[in-house]
Amino acid sequence: MPPFKTVYHVSWVDTDAAQVVHFSNYFRIFERAEEEMYTQLGLSFNEIQKKYNFWLPRVEAFCKFKAPAKFGDELEVYLTVEEIMEKAVKYAFTAKNKQSEQLVAEGYVVVVAADKEFGHAVSIPKELAQKLEVYKNP
Amino acid sequence: MPPFKTVYHVSWVDTDAAQVVHFSNYFRIFERAEEEMYTQLGLSFNEIQKKYNFWLPRVEAFCKFKAPAKFGDELEVYLTVEEIMEKAVKYAFTAKNKQSEQLVAEGYVVVVAADKEFGHAVSIPKELAQKLEVYKNP
Amino acid sequence: MPPFKTVYHVSWVDTDAAQVVHFSNYFRIFERAEEEMYTQLGLSFNEIQKKYNFWLPRVEAFCKFKAPAKFGDELEVYLTVEEIMEKAVKYAFTAKNKQSEQLVAEGYVVVVAADKEFGHAVSIPKELAQKLEVYKNP
Amino acid sequence: MPPFKTVYHVSWVDTDAAQVVHFSNYFRIFERAEEEMYTQLGLSFNEIQKKYNFWLPRVEAFCKFKAPAKFGDELEVYLTVEEIMEKAVKYAFTAKNKQSEQLVAEGYVVVVAADKEFGHAVSIPKELAQKLEVYKNP
Repeated sequence: MPPFKTVYHVSWVDTDAAQVVHFSNYFRIFERAEEEMYTQLGLSFNEIQKKYNFWLPRVEAFCKFKAPAKFGDELEVYLTVEEIMEKAVKYAFTAKNKQSEQLVAEGYVVVVAADKEFGHAVSIPKELAQKLEVYKNP
Repeated sequence: MPPFKTVYHVSWVDTDAAQVVHFSNYFRIFERAEEEMYTQLGLSFNEIQKKYNFWLPRVEAFCKFKAPAKFGDELEVYLTVEEIMEKAVKYAFTAKNKQSEQLVAEGYVVVVAADKEFGHAVSIPKELAQKLEVYKNP
Repeated sequence: MPPFKTVYHVSWVDTDAAQVVHFSNYFRIFERAEEEMYTQLGLSFNEIQKKYNFWLPRVEAFCKFKAPAKFGDELEVYLTVEEIMEKAVKYAFTAKNKQSEQLVAEGYVVVVAADKEFGHAVSIPKELAQKLEVYKNP
Repeated sequence: MPPFKTVYHVSWVDTDAAQVVHFSNYFRIFERAEEEMYTQLGLSFNEIQKKYNFWLPRVEAFCKFKAPAKFGDELEVYLTVEEIMEKAVKYAFTAKNKQSEQLVAEGYVVVVAADKEFGHAVSIPKELAQKLEVYKNP
Protein backbone atom coordinates (compact mmCIF):
# COMPACT_ATOMS: atom_id res chain seq x y z
CA MET A 1 0.00 0.00 0.00
CA PRO A 2 1.22 3.54 -0.66
CA PRO A 3 1.66 5.75 2.42
CA PHE A 4 -1.13 7.94 3.74
CA LYS A 5 -0.96 11.31 2.01
CA THR A 6 -2.37 14.69 2.86
CA VAL A 7 -1.67 18.31 1.92
CA TYR A 8 -0.77 21.05 4.38
CA HIS A 9 -0.93 24.75 3.54
CA VAL A 10 1.76 26.75 5.31
CA SER A 11 0.08 29.47 7.36
CA TRP A 12 1.61 32.84 8.27
CA VAL A 13 1.84 31.84 11.92
CA ASP A 14 3.93 28.76 11.00
CA THR A 15 6.78 30.97 9.81
CA ASP A 16 9.48 32.70 11.82
CA ALA A 17 11.74 35.70 11.28
CA ALA A 18 13.84 33.73 8.77
CA GLN A 19 10.61 33.71 6.70
CA VAL A 20 10.46 29.93 6.73
CA VAL A 21 8.47 27.36 8.70
CA HIS A 22 9.81 27.09 12.26
CA PHE A 23 11.36 23.65 12.71
CA SER A 24 9.14 22.76 15.69
CA ASN A 25 6.09 23.11 13.46
CA TYR A 26 7.01 20.10 11.32
CA PHE A 27 6.26 17.92 14.33
CA ARG A 28 2.83 19.56 14.54
CA ILE A 29 2.27 19.13 10.79
CA PHE A 30 3.17 15.44 11.14
CA GLU A 31 0.80 15.02 14.07
CA ARG A 32 -2.01 16.61 12.07
CA ALA A 33 -1.33 14.10 9.28
CA GLU A 34 -1.59 11.30 11.84
CA GLU A 35 -4.95 12.68 12.99
CA GLU A 36 -6.21 12.82 9.41
CA MET A 37 -5.07 9.26 8.81
CA TYR A 38 -7.14 8.11 11.79
CA THR A 39 -10.17 9.94 10.44
CA GLN A 40 -9.61 8.44 7.01
CA LEU A 41 -9.37 4.95 8.55
CA GLY A 42 -12.71 5.52 10.24
CA LEU A 43 -11.08 5.48 13.65
CA SER A 44 -12.39 8.11 16.01
CA PHE A 45 -9.44 8.73 18.25
CA ASN A 46 -11.76 10.14 20.90
CA GLU A 47 -13.87 6.97 20.93
CA ILE A 48 -10.86 4.68 20.99
CA GLN A 49 -9.36 6.61 23.89
CA LYS A 50 -12.56 6.27 25.87
CA LYS A 51 -13.12 2.61 25.02
CA TYR A 52 -9.63 1.46 26.00
CA ASN A 53 -8.84 4.25 28.45
CA PHE A 54 -5.44 5.06 27.02
CA TRP A 55 -3.52 7.90 25.36
CA LEU A 56 -0.80 7.67 22.75
CA PRO A 57 1.93 9.91 24.19
CA ARG A 58 5.02 10.43 22.07
CA VAL A 59 8.23 8.94 23.48
CA GLU A 60 10.61 9.79 20.68
CA ALA A 61 10.66 12.27 17.81
CA PHE A 62 13.25 12.92 15.13
CA CYS A 63 13.37 15.13 12.06
CA LYS A 64 15.83 16.20 9.39
CA PHE A 65 15.07 19.55 7.82
CA LYS A 66 16.18 19.37 4.20
CA ALA A 67 14.84 22.54 2.60
CA PRO A 68 12.93 25.58 3.85
CA ALA A 69 9.19 25.96 3.34
CA LYS A 70 7.62 29.38 3.06
CA PHE A 71 4.28 31.03 3.70
CA GLY A 72 1.73 29.84 1.19
CA ASP A 73 3.63 26.69 0.24
CA GLU A 74 1.65 23.51 -0.14
CA LEU A 75 3.33 20.57 1.52
CA GLU A 76 2.53 16.99 0.60
CA VAL A 77 2.83 15.04 3.81
CA TYR A 78 3.34 11.27 3.67
CA LEU A 79 2.88 8.96 6.63
CA THR A 80 3.95 5.32 6.79
CA VAL A 81 3.44 3.00 9.75
CA GLU A 82 7.05 1.82 10.16
CA GLU A 83 6.52 -0.65 12.93
CA ILE A 84 3.71 -1.88 15.16
CA MET A 85 5.18 -3.12 18.43
CA GLU A 86 3.28 -4.64 21.34
CA LYS A 87 2.87 -1.37 23.17
CA ALA A 88 4.20 1.17 20.69
CA VAL A 89 3.88 2.35 17.11
CA LYS A 90 6.54 4.03 14.97
CA TYR A 91 5.41 6.38 12.22
CA ALA A 92 7.69 7.68 9.47
CA PHE A 93 6.89 11.03 7.86
CA THR A 94 8.08 13.05 4.91
CA ALA A 95 7.02 16.48 3.72
CA LYS A 96 7.58 17.49 0.12
CA ASN A 97 7.01 20.81 -1.57
CA LYS A 98 4.05 20.14 -3.86
CA GLN A 99 5.16 22.53 -6.57
CA SER A 100 8.91 21.92 -6.65
CA GLU A 101 8.68 18.29 -5.46
CA GLN A 102 11.67 19.07 -3.24
CA LEU A 103 11.98 17.08 -0.02
CA VAL A 104 11.41 19.51 2.85
CA ALA A 105 11.53 17.38 5.98
CA GLU A 106 11.66 13.73 6.97
CA GLY A 107 11.45 12.12 10.35
CA TYR A 108 9.75 9.70 12.63
CA VAL A 109 7.75 9.63 15.81
CA VAL A 110 7.31 6.78 18.28
CA VAL A 111 4.13 6.67 20.36
CA VAL A 112 3.28 4.30 23.20
CA ALA A 113 -0.09 3.25 24.47
CA ALA A 114 -0.30 4.52 28.04
CA ASP A 115 -3.00 3.92 30.59
CA LYS A 116 -4.80 7.21 31.18
CA GLU A 117 -4.93 6.90 34.94
CA PHE A 118 -1.64 5.26 35.87
CA GLY A 119 0.52 6.17 32.93
CA HIS A 120 2.07 2.71 32.44
CA ALA A 121 2.41 1.21 28.99
CA VAL A 122 -0.41 -1.05 27.83
CA SER A 123 -0.92 -3.22 24.75
CA ILE A 124 -1.99 -1.56 21.52
CA PRO A 125 -5.65 -2.61 21.05
CA LYS A 126 -6.02 -5.19 18.25
CA GLU A 127 -8.62 -3.16 16.35
CA LEU A 128 -6.17 -0.25 16.26
CA ALA A 129 -3.24 -2.42 15.16
CA GLN A 130 -5.32 -4.02 12.41
CA LYS A 131 -6.46 -0.71 10.98
CA LEU A 132 -2.91 0.65 11.02
CA GLU A 133 -1.80 -2.31 8.86
CA VAL A 134 -3.25 -0.41 5.90
CA TYR A 135 -0.36 2.02 5.98
CA LYS A 136 2.25 -0.41 7.20
CA ASN A 137 5.58 -0.37 5.46
CA PRO A 138 5.86 -3.73 3.68
CA MET B 1 -0.79 49.80 44.18
CA PRO B 2 1.20 49.74 40.96
CA PRO B 3 0.30 47.02 38.44
CA PHE B 4 1.98 43.62 38.45
CA LYS B 5 5.05 43.79 36.26
CA THR B 6 7.15 41.16 34.57
CA VAL B 7 9.62 40.98 31.70
CA TYR B 8 9.21 38.78 28.64
CA HIS B 9 12.07 38.01 26.23
CA VAL B 10 10.88 37.63 22.67
CA SER B 11 11.90 34.19 21.40
CA TRP B 12 12.61 33.27 17.78
CA VAL B 13 9.48 31.13 17.61
CA ASP B 14 7.32 34.11 18.63
CA THR B 15 8.14 35.91 15.40
CA ASP B 16 6.63 35.46 11.94
CA ALA B 17 7.77 36.15 8.40
CA ALA B 18 7.32 39.90 8.93
CA GLN B 19 10.13 39.49 11.49
CA VAL B 20 7.92 40.69 14.32
CA VAL B 21 5.97 38.98 17.10
CA HIS B 22 2.85 37.31 15.69
CA PHE B 23 -0.21 39.11 17.06
CA SER B 24 -1.70 35.95 18.57
CA ASN B 25 1.35 35.61 20.79
CA TYR B 26 0.54 38.76 22.77
CA PHE B 27 -2.42 36.89 24.24
CA ARG B 28 -0.02 34.13 25.28
CA ILE B 29 2.45 36.63 26.72
CA PHE B 30 -0.38 38.23 28.72
CA GLU B 31 -1.52 34.83 30.01
CA ARG B 32 2.02 34.04 31.10
CA ALA B 33 2.07 37.34 33.03
CA GLU B 34 -1.19 36.32 34.70
CA GLU B 35 0.39 33.01 35.72
CA GLU B 36 3.42 34.78 37.16
CA MET B 37 1.17 37.15 39.10
CA TYR B 38 -0.57 34.16 40.69
CA THR B 39 2.77 32.68 41.66
CA GLN B 40 3.91 36.01 43.04
CA LEU B 41 0.70 36.28 45.11
CA GLY B 42 1.42 32.87 46.58
CA LEU B 43 -1.58 31.38 44.83
CA SER B 44 -1.01 27.98 43.35
CA PHE B 45 -3.43 27.90 40.49
CA ASN B 46 -3.31 24.12 40.50
CA GLU B 47 -4.29 23.94 44.17
CA ILE B 48 -7.03 26.52 43.81
CA GLN B 49 -8.49 24.65 40.85
CA LYS B 50 -8.56 21.43 42.80
CA LYS B 51 -9.93 22.98 45.97
CA TYR B 52 -12.84 24.75 44.30
CA ASN B 53 -13.15 22.47 41.27
CA PHE B 54 -13.24 25.27 38.72
CA TRP B 55 -11.31 26.61 35.74
CA LEU B 56 -10.95 30.20 34.62
CA PRO B 57 -11.79 30.01 30.91
CA ARG B 58 -11.48 33.20 28.91
CA VAL B 59 -14.74 34.62 27.58
CA GLU B 60 -13.43 37.78 25.95
CA ALA B 61 -10.08 39.02 24.71
CA PHE B 62 -9.08 42.26 23.04
CA CYS B 63 -5.78 43.77 22.00
CA LYS B 64 -4.47 46.78 20.12
CA PHE B 65 -1.08 46.28 18.52
CA LYS B 66 0.71 49.62 18.63
CA ALA B 67 4.25 48.87 17.56
CA PRO B 68 6.12 45.77 16.40
CA ALA B 69 8.37 43.77 18.70
CA LYS B 70 11.30 41.83 17.33
CA PHE B 71 13.35 38.79 18.21
CA GLY B 72 15.47 39.49 21.28
CA ASP B 73 13.36 42.43 22.48
CA GLU B 74 12.60 42.62 26.15
CA LEU B 75 8.98 43.47 26.83
CA GLU B 76 7.81 44.90 30.12
CA VAL B 77 4.38 43.44 30.68
CA TYR B 78 1.99 45.17 33.09
CA LEU B 79 -1.14 43.56 34.48
CA THR B 80 -3.90 45.36 36.35
CA VAL B 81 -7.01 43.74 37.77
CA GLU B 82 -9.60 46.04 36.16
CA GLU B 83 -12.69 44.58 37.74
CA ILE B 84 -13.65 41.73 40.04
CA MET B 85 -17.21 40.68 39.30
CA GLU B 86 -19.22 37.98 41.08
CA LYS B 87 -18.28 35.27 38.63
CA ALA B 88 -15.71 36.95 36.39
CA VAL B 89 -12.49 38.94 36.48
CA LYS B 90 -11.27 41.48 33.94
CA TYR B 91 -7.53 41.96 33.56
CA ALA B 92 -5.95 44.85 31.65
CA PHE B 93 -2.53 44.36 30.09
CA THR B 94 0.09 46.48 28.43
CA ALA B 95 3.42 45.50 26.89
CA LYS B 96 6.17 48.10 26.51
CA ASN B 97 9.54 47.80 24.83
CA LYS B 98 11.98 47.93 27.73
CA GLN B 99 14.71 49.70 25.82
CA SER B 100 12.72 52.22 23.80
CA GLU B 101 9.86 52.49 26.32
CA GLN B 102 7.50 52.40 23.35
CA LEU B 103 4.02 50.96 23.92
CA VAL B 104 3.84 47.71 21.97
CA ALA B 105 0.43 46.27 22.80
CA GLU B 106 -2.46 46.90 25.15
CA GLY B 107 -5.55 44.91 25.77
CA TYR B 108 -7.77 43.09 28.18
CA VAL B 109 -9.02 39.63 28.92
CA VAL B 110 -12.17 38.59 30.78
CA VAL B 111 -12.18 35.23 32.55
CA VAL B 112 -15.10 33.50 34.24
CA ALA B 113 -15.04 30.94 36.99
CA ALA B 114 -16.56 27.78 35.50
CA ASP B 115 -17.38 24.54 37.22
CA LYS B 116 -15.00 21.89 35.92
CA GLU B 117 -17.63 19.21 35.48
CA PHE B 118 -20.70 21.08 34.31
CA GLY B 119 -19.18 24.19 32.82
CA HIS B 120 -21.63 26.67 34.37
CA ALA B 121 -20.38 29.90 35.91
CA VAL B 122 -19.70 29.84 39.64
CA SER B 123 -18.73 32.51 42.16
CA ILE B 124 -15.13 33.62 42.31
CA PRO B 125 -13.78 32.14 45.57
CA LYS B 126 -13.29 34.84 48.26
CA GLU B 127 -9.65 33.96 48.89
CA LEU B 128 -8.96 34.47 45.20
CA ALA B 129 -10.84 37.78 45.03
CA GLN B 130 -9.03 39.06 48.11
CA LYS B 131 -5.59 38.24 46.76
CA LEU B 132 -6.39 39.86 43.42
CA GLU B 133 -7.23 43.12 45.25
CA VAL B 134 -3.46 43.72 45.43
CA TYR B 135 -3.36 44.54 41.74
CA LYS B 136 -6.83 46.06 41.53
CA ASN B 137 -7.13 49.28 39.64
CA PRO B 138 -8.06 51.90 42.23
CA MET C 1 -23.07 37.55 -0.95
CA PRO C 2 -22.77 35.01 1.82
CA PRO C 3 -19.58 35.14 3.92
CA PHE C 4 -16.49 33.15 3.01
CA LYS C 5 -16.73 29.76 4.67
CA THR C 6 -14.15 27.13 5.48
CA VAL C 7 -13.85 24.17 7.82
CA TYR C 8 -11.14 23.77 10.45
CA HIS C 9 -10.38 20.47 12.19
CA VAL C 10 -9.26 20.94 15.77
CA SER C 11 -5.84 19.35 16.20
CA TRP C 12 -4.45 17.91 19.42
CA VAL C 13 -1.90 20.70 19.71
CA ASP C 14 -4.70 23.31 19.61
CA THR C 15 -6.04 22.09 22.95
CA ASP C 16 -4.83 22.88 26.46
CA ALA C 17 -5.08 21.20 29.84
CA ALA C 18 -8.78 22.13 30.08
CA GLN C 19 -9.16 19.80 27.06
CA VAL C 20 -10.51 22.62 24.91
CA VAL C 21 -9.02 24.84 22.22
CA HIS C 22 -6.74 27.47 23.78
CA PHE C 23 -8.31 30.90 23.28
CA SER C 24 -5.27 32.31 21.48
CA ASN C 25 -5.71 29.70 18.76
CA TYR C 26 -9.00 31.17 17.55
CA PHE C 27 -7.02 34.14 16.27
CA ARG C 28 -4.82 31.69 14.35
CA ILE C 29 -7.83 29.82 13.02
CA PHE C 30 -9.33 33.12 11.85
CA GLU C 31 -6.07 34.11 10.16
CA ARG C 32 -5.95 30.78 8.36
CA ALA C 33 -9.50 31.42 7.10
CA GLU C 34 -8.33 34.81 5.82
CA GLU C 35 -5.47 33.11 3.98
CA GLU C 36 -7.84 30.60 2.41
CA MET C 37 -10.17 33.40 1.32
CA TYR C 38 -7.27 35.08 -0.49
CA THR C 39 -6.44 31.84 -2.24
CA GLN C 40 -10.07 31.32 -3.14
CA LEU C 41 -10.23 34.87 -4.58
CA GLY C 42 -7.23 34.07 -6.74
CA LEU C 43 -5.09 36.55 -4.84
CA SER C 44 -1.61 35.37 -4.13
CA PHE C 45 -0.73 37.20 -0.97
CA ASN C 46 2.95 36.69 -1.70
CA GLU C 47 2.65 38.30 -5.13
CA ILE C 48 0.57 41.20 -3.86
CA GLN C 49 3.09 41.86 -1.09
CA LYS C 50 5.93 41.96 -3.57
CA LYS C 51 4.06 44.05 -6.14
CA TYR C 52 3.00 46.77 -3.70
CA ASN C 53 5.75 46.29 -1.14
CA PHE C 54 3.45 46.19 1.86
CA TRP C 55 2.36 43.88 4.67
CA LEU C 56 -1.02 43.69 6.36
CA PRO C 57 -0.13 43.82 10.07
CA ARG C 58 -2.96 43.46 12.54
CA VAL C 59 -3.69 46.56 14.63
CA GLU C 60 -6.68 45.31 16.57
CA ALA C 61 -8.14 41.93 17.46
CA PHE C 62 -11.17 40.99 19.50
CA CYS C 63 -12.91 37.73 20.27
CA LYS C 64 -15.75 36.41 22.43
CA PHE C 65 -15.45 32.76 23.33
CA LYS C 66 -18.98 31.37 23.54
CA ALA C 67 -18.54 27.63 23.86
CA PRO C 68 -15.57 25.28 24.12
CA ALA C 69 -14.28 23.30 21.15
CA LYS C 70 -12.57 19.97 21.65
CA PHE C 71 -10.01 17.81 19.88
CA GLY C 72 -11.48 16.39 16.71
CA ASP C 73 -14.26 18.96 16.43
CA GLU C 74 -14.94 20.41 13.02
CA LEU C 75 -15.40 24.16 13.10
CA GLU C 76 -17.18 26.05 10.38
CA VAL C 77 -15.39 29.37 10.13
CA TYR C 78 -17.16 32.31 8.49
CA LEU C 79 -15.38 35.47 7.37
CA THR C 80 -17.08 38.70 6.33
CA VAL C 81 -15.31 41.83 5.17
CA GLU C 82 -16.92 44.30 7.58
CA GLU C 83 -15.36 47.47 6.28
CA ILE C 84 -12.82 48.53 3.68
CA MET C 85 -11.19 51.76 4.79
CA GLU C 86 -8.58 53.78 2.88
CA LYS C 87 -5.65 52.12 4.62
CA ALA C 88 -7.28 49.39 6.65
CA VAL C 89 -9.66 46.46 6.42
CA LYS C 90 -11.90 45.04 9.15
CA TYR C 91 -12.80 41.38 9.01
CA ALA C 92 -15.53 39.78 11.13
CA PHE C 93 -15.26 36.10 12.00
CA THR C 94 -17.41 33.45 13.57
CA ALA C 95 -16.66 29.82 14.33
CA LYS C 96 -19.47 27.34 14.72
CA ASN C 97 -19.39 23.70 15.76
CA LYS C 98 -20.30 21.87 12.56
CA GLN C 99 -22.09 19.01 14.30
CA SER C 100 -23.98 20.85 17.05
CA GLU C 101 -24.25 24.15 15.12
CA GLN C 102 -23.38 25.89 18.38
CA LEU C 103 -21.58 29.24 18.12
CA VAL C 104 -18.06 28.73 19.45
CA ALA C 105 -16.32 32.07 18.93
CA GLU C 106 -16.95 35.39 17.23
CA GLY C 107 -14.68 38.33 16.77
CA TYR C 108 -13.01 40.75 14.46
CA VAL C 109 -9.57 41.74 13.31
CA VAL C 110 -8.43 45.06 11.83
CA VAL C 111 -5.44 45.04 9.50
CA VAL C 112 -3.64 48.04 8.01
CA ALA C 113 -1.58 48.21 4.86
CA ALA C 114 1.95 49.11 5.98
CA ASP C 115 4.95 49.90 3.86
CA LYS C 116 7.44 47.04 4.24
CA GLU C 117 10.48 49.26 4.63
CA PHE C 118 9.25 52.24 6.60
CA GLY C 119 6.25 50.78 8.37
CA HIS C 120 3.90 53.71 7.73
CA ALA C 121 0.32 53.11 6.60
CA VAL C 122 -0.32 53.15 2.87
CA SER C 123 -3.48 52.93 0.77
CA ILE C 124 -5.07 49.55 0.21
CA PRO C 125 -4.33 48.68 -3.44
CA LYS C 126 -7.47 48.98 -5.62
CA GLU C 127 -7.18 45.45 -6.98
CA LEU C 128 -7.17 44.14 -3.42
CA ALA C 129 -10.13 46.28 -2.35
CA GLN C 130 -12.14 45.22 -5.39
CA LYS C 131 -11.57 41.53 -4.79
CA LEU C 132 -12.50 41.87 -1.14
CA GLU C 133 -15.89 43.35 -2.16
CA VAL C 134 -17.00 39.78 -2.84
CA TYR C 135 -17.22 39.07 0.87
CA LYS C 136 -18.20 42.58 1.92
CA ASN C 137 -21.01 42.85 4.40
CA PRO C 138 -23.86 44.51 2.50
CA MET D 1 32.65 23.52 32.61
CA PRO D 2 29.16 22.58 33.69
CA PRO D 3 26.42 22.92 31.05
CA PHE D 4 24.45 26.12 30.60
CA LYS D 5 21.41 25.99 32.87
CA THR D 6 18.16 27.87 32.92
CA VAL D 7 14.69 27.38 34.37
CA TYR D 8 11.48 27.24 32.34
CA HIS D 9 8.02 27.61 33.86
CA VAL D 10 5.42 25.53 32.07
CA SER D 11 2.66 27.83 30.86
CA TRP D 12 -0.99 26.86 30.35
CA VAL D 13 -0.64 27.18 26.58
CA ASP D 14 2.23 24.67 26.58
CA THR D 15 -0.11 21.89 27.67
CA ASP D 16 -2.50 19.80 25.61
CA ALA D 17 -5.64 17.80 26.30
CA ALA D 18 -3.59 15.08 28.03
CA GLN D 19 -2.80 17.84 30.58
CA VAL D 20 0.91 17.62 29.87
CA VAL D 21 3.36 19.66 27.82
CA HIS D 22 2.86 18.96 24.10
CA PHE D 23 5.96 17.19 22.78
CA SER D 24 6.64 19.82 20.10
CA ASN D 25 7.07 22.43 22.81
CA TYR D 26 10.23 20.82 24.17
CA PHE D 27 11.97 21.88 20.98
CA ARG D 28 10.78 25.44 21.66
CA ILE D 29 11.90 25.26 25.27
CA PHE D 30 15.34 24.05 24.12
CA GLU D 31 15.58 26.87 21.59
CA ARG D 32 14.72 29.40 24.27
CA ALA D 33 17.55 27.97 26.41
CA GLU D 34 19.90 28.40 23.45
CA GLU D 35 18.81 32.05 23.15
CA GLU D 36 19.43 32.63 26.83
CA MET D 37 22.86 31.04 26.58
CA TYR D 38 23.77 33.50 23.80
CA THR D 39 22.62 36.40 25.94
CA GLN D 40 24.56 35.07 28.90
CA LEU D 41 27.71 34.75 26.73
CA GLY D 42 27.32 38.39 25.74
CA LEU D 43 26.54 37.40 22.16
CA SER D 44 23.78 39.38 20.56
CA PHE D 45 22.41 36.98 18.03
CA ASN D 46 20.92 39.88 16.10
CA GLU D 47 24.30 41.63 15.82
CA ILE D 48 26.13 38.44 14.86
CA GLN D 49 23.55 37.72 12.17
CA LYS D 50 23.98 41.16 10.70
CA LYS D 51 27.78 41.19 10.94
CA TYR D 52 28.28 37.84 9.21
CA ASN D 53 25.05 37.81 7.22
CA PHE D 54 24.04 34.30 8.22
CA TRP D 55 21.28 32.42 10.03
CA LEU D 56 21.55 29.26 12.08
CA PRO D 57 18.78 27.08 10.65
CA ARG D 58 18.21 23.72 12.29
CA VAL D 59 18.99 20.69 10.13
CA GLU D 60 18.29 17.95 12.63
CA ALA D 61 16.34 17.62 15.86
CA PHE D 62 15.79 14.67 18.15
CA CYS D 63 14.12 14.23 21.49
CA LYS D 64 13.17 11.43 23.89
CA PHE D 65 10.24 12.23 26.15
CA LYS D 66 10.87 10.45 29.46
CA ALA D 67 8.21 11.81 31.80
CA PRO D 68 5.30 14.22 31.46
CA ALA D 69 5.51 17.82 32.63
CA LYS D 70 2.43 19.66 33.79
CA PHE D 71 1.14 23.21 34.01
CA GLY D 72 3.07 25.13 36.66
CA ASP D 73 6.05 22.77 36.68
CA GLU D 74 9.49 24.31 36.79
CA LEU D 75 11.86 22.67 34.36
CA GLU D 76 15.62 22.90 34.72
CA VAL D 77 16.96 22.99 31.20
CA TYR D 78 20.60 22.08 30.56
CA LEU D 79 22.43 22.85 27.34
CA THR D 80 25.82 21.44 26.34
CA VAL D 81 27.67 22.25 23.14
CA GLU D 82 28.27 18.67 21.94
CA GLU D 83 30.31 19.44 18.88
CA ILE D 84 31.52 22.47 16.95
CA MET D 85 32.00 21.50 13.31
CA GLU D 86 33.28 23.73 10.53
CA LYS D 87 29.82 24.81 9.42
CA ALA D 88 27.58 23.32 12.06
CA VAL D 89 27.05 23.09 15.81
CA LYS D 90 25.40 20.28 17.76
CA TYR D 91 23.71 21.12 21.04
CA ALA D 92 22.58 18.53 23.58
CA PHE D 93 19.68 19.34 25.89
CA THR D 94 18.03 17.86 28.91
CA ALA D 95 15.01 19.04 30.87
CA LYS D 96 14.54 17.93 34.45
CA ASN D 97 11.64 18.52 36.80
CA LYS D 98 13.07 20.92 39.38
CA GLN D 99 11.02 19.58 42.27
CA SER D 100 11.14 15.84 41.64
CA GLU D 101 14.52 15.91 39.85
CA GLN D 102 13.00 13.48 37.35
CA LEU D 103 14.37 13.56 33.81
CA VAL D 104 11.59 14.88 31.56
CA ALA D 105 13.16 15.13 28.11
CA GLU D 106 16.53 14.82 26.46
CA GLY D 107 17.59 15.46 22.93
CA TYR D 108 19.83 17.29 20.54
CA VAL D 109 19.63 19.84 17.78
CA VAL D 110 22.07 20.42 14.93
CA VAL D 111 22.27 23.90 13.41
CA VAL D 112 24.24 25.00 10.36
CA ALA D 113 25.50 28.43 9.49
CA ALA D 114 23.70 29.42 6.28
CA ASP D 115 24.23 32.48 4.14
CA LYS D 116 21.16 34.67 4.48
CA GLU D 117 20.86 35.45 0.80
CA PHE D 118 21.89 32.26 -0.94
CA GLY D 119 21.19 29.69 1.71
CA HIS D 120 24.42 27.72 1.31
CA ALA D 121 26.41 26.60 4.33
CA VAL D 122 29.19 28.92 5.51
CA SER D 123 31.89 28.61 8.17
CA ILE D 124 30.94 29.24 11.77
CA PRO D 125 32.54 32.62 12.63
CA LYS D 126 35.56 32.21 14.93
CA GLU D 127 34.23 34.60 17.56
CA LEU D 128 31.08 32.49 17.78
CA ALA D 129 32.99 29.20 17.98
CA GLN D 130 35.28 30.57 20.68
CA LYS D 131 32.42 31.76 22.85
CA LEU D 132 30.62 28.45 22.50
CA GLU D 133 33.71 26.65 23.87
CA VAL D 134 32.54 27.73 27.32
CA TYR D 135 29.73 25.17 27.23
CA LYS D 136 31.58 22.58 25.16
CA ASN D 137 31.37 19.01 26.31
CA PRO D 138 34.90 18.09 27.42
